[in-house]
Amino acid sequence: MHMHQIDVIRWLPEGRLLLLDQTRLPREEVYVECADERQVAEAISSMRVRGAPAIGIAAAYGMALAAWNAAEDQSRDALLERLRRAGEVLCASRPTAVNLQWAVERTLAAAEACGPDDDPRHAALDAALRIHAGQLAADERMGELGSELLPDEGAVLTHCNTGALATGGRGTALGVVRTAWERGKRLPVFVDETRPRLQGARLTAWELSRLGIPFTLLVDGAAGLLLRSGRIDAVLVGADRIALNGDVANKVGTYPLALAAREAGVPFYVVAPVSSVDPATSVGDLIPIEERDADEVLYVDGVRIAPEGVAAFNPAFDVTPASLVTAIVTEQGIARPPYEASLVRLTGVTDTDRRTLVGESA
Amino acid sequence: MHMHQIDVIRWLPEGRLLLLDQTRLPREEVYVECADERQVAEAISSMRVRGAPAIGIAAAYGMALAAWNAAEDQSRDALLERLRRAGEVLCASRPTAVNLQWAVERTLAAAEACGPDDDPRHAALDAALRIHAGQLAADERMGELGSELLPDEGAVLTHCNTGALATGGRGTALGVVRTAWERGKRLPVFVDETRPRLQGARLTAWELSRLGIPFTLLVDGAAGLLLRSGRIDAVLVGADRIALNGDVANKVGTYPLALAAREAGVPFYVVAPVSSVDPATSVGDLIPIEERDADEVLYVDGVRIAPEGVAAFNPAFDVTPASLVTAIVTEQGIARPPYEASLVRLTGVTDTDRRTLVGESA
Repeated sequence: MHMHQIDVIRWLPEGRLLLLDQTRLPREEVYVECADERQVAEAISSMRVRGAPAIGIAAAYGMALAAWNAAEDQSRDALLERLRRAGEVLCASRPTAVNLQWAVERTLAAAEACGPDDDPRHAALDAALRIHAGQLAADERMGELGSELLPDEGAVLTHCNTGALATGGRGTALGVVRTAWERGKRLPVFVDETRPRLQGARLTAWELSRLGIPFTLLVDGAAGLLLRSGRIDAVLVGADRIALNGDVANKVGTYPLALAAREAGVPFYVVAPVSSVDPATSVGDLIPIEERDADEVLYVDGVRIAPEGVAAFNPAFDVTPASLVTAIVTEQGIARPPYEASLVRLTGVTDTDRRTLVGESA
Repeated sequence: MHMHQIDVIRWLPEGRLLLLDQTRLPREEVYVECADERQVAEAISSMRVRGAPAIGIAAAYGMALAAWNAAEDQSRDALLERLRRAGEVLCASRPTAVNLQWAVERTLAAAEACGPDDDPRHAALDAALRIHAGQLAADERMGELGSELLPDEGAVLTHCNTGALATGGRGTALGVVRTAWERGKRLPVFVDETRPRLQGARLTAWELSRLGIPFTLLVDGAAGLLLRSGRIDAVLVGADRIALNGDVANKVGTYPLALAAREAGVPFYVVAPVSSVDPATSVGDLIPIEERDADEVLYVDGVRIAPEGVAAFNPAFDVTPASLVTAIVTEQGIARPPYEASLVRLTGVTDTDRRTLVGESA
């Protein structure tokens, strides 16, 4: 099986960031070039780059751009202050994905930590490159671990886009499917179209077509019937933030899918890097849920579908309670219930750390 | 509150049927004129007229058109044979809604039953007009009975379109909401957009706008989160076919809604005329589920949303098990579990009838 690499996020040596504009897919493969953190924040909030891990990587490069653009003779304190402000701009671009905060904090910490003889500007870029490389490696490992959970034949169901476009690497949930196919498993994919932004119909369909993995598209409301029919062996989704108790914030529509999977006795797997686990969030109800513009519901590809003057409720994510999650696949291992214990073990966060972090963020 | 009447199905005295073309709403209010049963069958299969009760009424008029078009000197046997063939054409237009079969059988039986001095052609039209009038009355009664189940204030959630457009009268589930508002209850409506055909966004939004009832649109996948949030006091849906055990076939996406309602402790009400109860279907798994063209998933309003060459799974309905249904509101009364007893009591079908009917249809 021939697998293409998809170039989602690329740092250019002259200090520019190229992002594959996912709002233009599947029709056009166009890149946007970002020269500073504000352009990166715009690309994140308008979902030119999306998927929690990819947002984190883009934000890290956004910090690198902020550092890069600083005057060489700027004082260390002024540079760090500038980076903190850049981090605020980037973190405000989307509130739910915790990878974004994590990547900004990591990049900032690298700049702050470098010694008097090092250049904090280089430290920020180094940190961003390390985050990017780390995600590629994490994707490989999640693919290996997750693939072992799947049968050799059957069918899987997924939601939204969790492939290369979502991480810059192999992907999370879709990366598991890709690894399974590379290892000879034969698992056709059922893909929720994922309204309102249609990441399933536009992005996952595009990726699976390129990978040559057979798939079938369905509207989100048809997943319940499909699961009840007994044709699905596993549901695989990503995560935008995971609370320490295992509650999972992910693309809106994930929660009903988890309910239908439990009802049908089908395992429900969340695949996400450890950076999606938020040590400062004890339970899912504390995760802020981004509400996006009503026009995402009222228009499809620029065509208005509802009458004029209509209001819409448009949450970007929902929270799936840990009780519906069979396992959480991370690059550090597979967490199983009770998640209070297994996630702390995998992430290396102790309960004391957690309480400190919760206190800090409160 | 000023309530407009919507003219969905109209029999013209010259022997023509006018149907409001629901595929053109909300942009245009255009009527299609049908001169024979084939044109009615086309209008049903292409969903120019939709909603189980409205389909039944249209099919009854389709039978009346077939009778009307027969030559005056045609023999009684030839006319009845012609009507039987017309019934087959109409019943084949959509397989899931049982009201369609019911209306065809009623119209045919009326023609068959009329005495030697009566004209079977008039008998068929009389039967169609009675079915139409009966639905209007049934809608009123369902509105009264259902309204009493709702609180005076709060919010309700609905799926697909179950208003005037779906029945030609006040509607089933949406008719209950309308009656509740007329009686002074204040229940804003959350409306699932209902992919793939967007009956919620296009039709229910259009009706509620005309009725002046406040509402908010959401994508189908967001209903789970909304129910979990505690903001919804009741879910109200229609039905395309109800098995004798209370399993309900309705627009795809209804089943996940019922799961989320149960999880949130929110009552889940099905509102449908007794003609939606199929005495020949003992359990929901026996209900044929129509699969429609993949293009309904792949295109929205003529705009292609997925890459070329993509396959889609497009079931029009799903089955909600009786265990998730709080009550079924019919014009004959409110059925509650166990439905095996309550539905038989309401529909007047005895167990012997049922077994005979099941035998006949097997």
